[in-house]
Amino acid sequence: MTSHLLDQPHHDGSALHVPAGTPAPGDRVPVRVRVPRAAGVAGVWLRTVRDGEPRLAQAVPDGVGPDGEDTYVAEVEVHNPVTPYRFLLDGPGGYRWLDGRGVHAREVPDAASFRLTTHDPAPAWLGDGLVYQVFPDRFARSAAADARPVPDWAVPAAWDDEPAGDGPLAGTQYYGGDLDGIVEHLDHLADLGVGTLYLTPVFPGRSNHRYDASTFAAVDPLLGGDDAYARLAAAVHARGMRLMGDITTNHTGAGHEWFTRALADRAAPERDLYVWAEPGRADVSTSPDGQGYASWLGYGSLPKLDWSADETWHRMVSGPDAPIGRYLRPPFRLDGWRVDVANMTGRWGSEDRTHAVARTLRAAVAAENPDAALIAEHFHDATTDLLAGGWHANMNYTGFTRPVWSWLAVDGSPVAAHGLPVTGVRRPGSAMVAAMRDFDAAVPWSVTARQWNMLGSHDTPRLRTVVGPDAVEAAVTLLLTYPGTPVVFAGDEVGATGDNGEHARTTMAWDQAAGGGPRWDAATLDVYRRLAAVRRGSSALRDGGMRWAVVDDDAVVFLRESPGERVLVVVARAPWAGITLPGRLLAPGAQPETLYGDLPVTAGADGLRVAGDGPGVAVVRLA
Amino acid sequence: MTSHLLDQPHHDGSALHVPAGTPAPGDRVPVRVRVPRAAGVAGVWLRTVRDGEPRLAQAVPDGVGPDGEDTYVAEVEVHNPVTPYRFLLDGPGGYRWLDGRGVHAREVPDAASFRLTTHDPAPAWLGDGLVYQVFPDRFARSAAADARPVPDWAVPAAWDDEPAGDGPLAGTQYYGGDLDGIVEHLDHLADLGVGTLYLTPVFPGRSNHRYDASTFAAVDPLLGGDDAYARLAAAVHARGMRLMGDITTNHTGAGHEWFTRALADRAAPERDLYVWAEPGRADVSTSPDGQGYASWLGYGSLPKLDWSADETWHRMVSGPDAPIGRYLRPPFRLDGWRVDVANMTGRWGSEDRTHAVARTLRAAVAAENPDAALIAEHFHDATTDLLAGGWHANMNYTGFTRPVWSWLAVDGSPVAAHGLPVTGVRRPGSAMVAAMRDFDAAVPWSVTARQWNMLGSHDTPRLRTVVGPDAVEAAVTLLLTYPGTPVVFAGDEVGATGDNGEHARTTMAWDQAAGGGPRWDAATLDVYRRLAAVRRGSSALRDGGMRWAVVDDDAVVFLRESPGERVLVVVARAPWAGITLPGRLLAPGAQPETLYGDLPVTAGADGLRVAGDGPGVAVVRLA
Repeated sequence: MTSHLLDQPHHDGSALHVPAGTPAPGDRVPVRVRVPRAAGVAGVWLRTVRDGEPRLAQAVPDGVGPDGEDTYVAEVEVHNPVTPYRFLLDGPGGYRWLDGRGVHAREVPDAASFRLTTHDPAPAWLGDGLVYQVFPDRFARSAAADARPVPDWAVPAAWDDEPAGDGPLAGTQYYGGDLDGIVEHLDHLADLGVGTLYLTPVFPGRSNHRYDASTFAAVDPLLGGDDAYARLAAAVHARGMRLMGDITTNHTGAGHEWFTRALADRAAPERDLYVWAEPGRADVSTSPDGQGYASWLGYGSLPKLDWSADETWHRMVSGPDAPIGRYLRPPFRLDGWRVDVANMTGRWGSEDRTHAVARTLRAAVAAENPDAALIAEHFHDATTDLLAGGWHANMNYTGFTRPVWSWLAVDGSPVAAHGLPVTGVRRPGSAMVAAMRDFDAAVPWSVTARQWNMLGSHDTPRLRTVVGPDAVEAAVTLLLTYPGTPVVFAGDEVGATGDNGEHARTTMAWDQAAGGGPRWDAATLDVYRRLAAVRRGSSALRDGGMRWAVVDDDAVVFLRESPGERVLVVVARAPWAGITLPGRLLAPGAQPETLYGDLPVTAGADGLRVAGDGPGVAVVRLA
Repeated sequence: MTSHLLDQPHHDGSALHVPAGTPAPGDRVPVRVRVPRAAGVAGVWLRTVRDGEPRLAQAVPDGVGPDGEDTYVAEVEVHNPVTPYRFLLDGPGGYRWLDGRGVHAREVPDAASFRLTTHDPAPAWLGDGLVYQVFPDRFARSAAADARPVPDWAVPAAWDDEPAGDGPLAGTQYYGGDLDGIVEHLDHLADLGVGTLYLTPVFPGRSNHRYDASTFAAVDPLLGGDDAYARLAAAVHARGMRLMGDITTNHTGAGHEWFTRALADRAAPERDLYVWAEPGRADVSTSPDGQGYASWLGYGSLPKLDWSADETWHRMVSGPDAPIGRYLRPPFRLDGWRVDVANMTGRWGSEDRTHAVARTLRAAVAAENPDAALIAEHFHDATTDLLAGGWHANMNYTGFTRPVWSWLAVDGSPVAAHGLPVTGVRRPGSAMVAAMRDFDAAVPWSVTARQWNMLGSHDTPRLRTVVGPDAVEAAVTLLLTYPGTPVVFAGDEVGATGDNGEHARTTMAWDQAAGGGPRWDAATLDVYRRLAAVRRGSSALRDGGMRWAVVDDDAVVFLRESPGERVLVVVARAPWAGITLPGRLLAPGAQPETLYGDLPVTAGADGLRVAGDGPGVAVVRLA
């Protein structure tokens, strides 16, 4: 089935439709909607929700295009922190609503309304290049690593060993990557087009992933300690890149100095930091001496922090040595945090303090560095949390990763990240696009424009294993042409494989970098590098709007448009019928300029011809 | 287009699928899903969201039906006040999700997940009969009414005058109905099958609608005062009926004693009760002496209450004479409140206290009468508010009224309730059902089962004007067979007409009751009376689940099922193709028993034949 969407009215929150910048209460913000004449619209109204009550304002024509597409404008008076809005399109056949999911010939709930927010967006630098995720134990070893003793919890592995996918070894297998090792390979990042290095936790723990911190007061000596972290930060910043950390706000490790004291002494101030609960219930663990405490999914190694306690706020956020601020200050000067298990932070039973925690973290981060980023881990539906003015954006597994996987997956491939007991099945393009629109529709454009889009992470199978080598280019093209922040898990760019999160935590085969090899796919690296460069050079790809044009089972076509540029993206997973698009998409007198890919897109008398070849991609500048 | 939905897996929150009763934290609640074998499902998993994190549990077969439909069960451990859940259906072609909107072959957000809640539902008595809405000025005059002087704000009207639809007269036209007049006509209510009488406001004001209270301390003398309200309450209760009031929590009248003092004296405690704001902004009115105050949609007659002030809580809720409690006590003993403009209550700019207000009102009401109801006016998307444990249910304009109108509307009829600048257009059945499912899906079943479903109110055009006389029976059949509380605006049952809310506030033509007449349609009254009796006699219609079976442009077919009964409902707005349903729907050896309507539904060798006649309806007991 093929859907043609260019005849539908269109709005998104990008600069062509909403003035750039964050509005303040009292501002009147003009919002524009583009209405193709073929849509049969006789009148346009803007519906906003203000103090819980909808109201309508008539939109007026504003710039009637010669190209069969008219623009209407109406003003939103900003009054609430978040203003939902959508458009009523009146015309023959009855009124329709236009919201983030599209056009509806019926009443719809407000969940998919567009949203204007007074909350500042994520910092603009997130759009400057790729975010590159490194799992420190697996990226690179400096010479100093050889001299460090293997800790008691660890089982040493050779650099080329395949990571264990399950069993105790998954958490204890120790490759000994360190921070100075990363410093030695920053050329690789620069070459790839990385703007931000994001490191999973660097605090000491009793696991290779270090999400079970035993302290937040120091960087793990196994990684080189505070000094190495400071050296890495300096080297990253010296190259004009940013550095982001990873903090667990939901829990600490059971070996954390706070938890040890809390268990030992019921009068200790640390007692207030944790959630104590009756043993025997779900997600409650029991200490050796029989004390029940809430823990992450019932894993006793990860006791849950209690955000109803002042002491927790003090230790984590507001105290002079609290980690949230400490690592944003010299000598580390982190540029932001990725927040682990943000979705559960502050939630337990009838308590739900997540939004308060998120807002306070944002304020604390901004107090140290107004230009810092705060990104949530939330691997399912974060949409309501993203309206609260706390997290800038989240790891967009549901709105990007899973939809892309679902379209490109090899049947039977492992897609079982996050506990889904299923294997991959290729779905039609309509399934991918509907899911993307559903999740995008529920958050302000300012969030969509900075969401952390990934093709995989340290918690998922590897992209190449999910979609197979032949579909990697299609996936990477989507990653680098879709609105948001492209995030690359180190190793994906050289073709790493892996069946699940643990198994996918592969090392980088630096010894193969020069000449290639089974663990260093230079052709894939070139795809990433070239597409990252195309994105860097295009305002439309970096900051433009998002307009779906054609959705076919085997191909999708969309437009990215900024005030100065229009880019057409075609991604085909297989041969399809192709399409002829309206010639008006091409600037007068211009020819399509292919920025990337080899699918032919040509201008003819009847319009813009997109060939039905596939698999293949095309990124084409039209204006 | 015709959709056949009986081959899809089904779940709703009714007793066939979830045990009756409100669960408490720590309870383990088995939830069941019915899976037709034709659905091609190989495995079923239950996905819940707990403390913000999804998790999956395998569902196990439970009662394999001989009829091609299997049941699976899994347990929800109740931990949060509201637990979202949905089902993962694995099988060939890839996994699908089942949520309140149906079956999806892709990732979906959580907004339409089923929901289990620890909040008590609305009282069961709401299901005992119709709720009958009376606008006191327009229902009936007792002899005492003739003796009352016409107030200074009012323009007297003769009982048979057509109400003004706009202009100043719309609010000042005064027919002089009173409370003793209602007492004299309770036979009409009993005959109709009314269980609850709901009266719009009875406090004095300067309008015929009385939403601009000048005090909450006494009932309007024009209606007979406190004594008449007590007499009405006693008479209603003596018949075993309930009585509900109408309270404005968003605002008072500008003539209210509190507002008068607040304007006059900036040091008065009443000053804290209102929201003072800069004149010139939207929704800010100006007093004669230049003071700016927030008001309902900028109407200066309705100054907005400030729920950030302790004084407001004291005056409205917690003080000894606060109206919320006072009228629930003798001699009035109201059985609950309908809360006016609940959607805006406590919302202003960056303040949003609506959920706190709603929860506190519920607690205050329950403290006086644990069996009292609290129903919100919220004429668009109330779904998030309905999860908070405050309002029991809301006036279901978006989830019921508008979808039904959209399917049955006469083209060009006035449907412009609540400011939509459009006229009616008949839409296909799929549009009605999709809207109903969207809104139902976003609230717990315990809310759906008590939502106030209406075909119109004092704020809308009359049903008969929207859908025309020929479609009234179809609309009333939907009202009385759909899950929720059927609410009838007095006059609809005798065929009242009206173009908008004000114009529709017609009087009751009691003089025509005996012999019929242009304002007393005995045939329509009979439709209401008979369908109300059918509902009263059917556990499935009162409390059963809701399963859509067939959705055609011109007809809809659905099942209502309780543990002891299965009722099939067919509503056709026009002739259609008819349908043959699986014979398994009929209890072994049974014949279809028509409870209402004349559309033939007959059992044959190949199944249950539903004739394609129309317009027409059938309500048929199958088991």
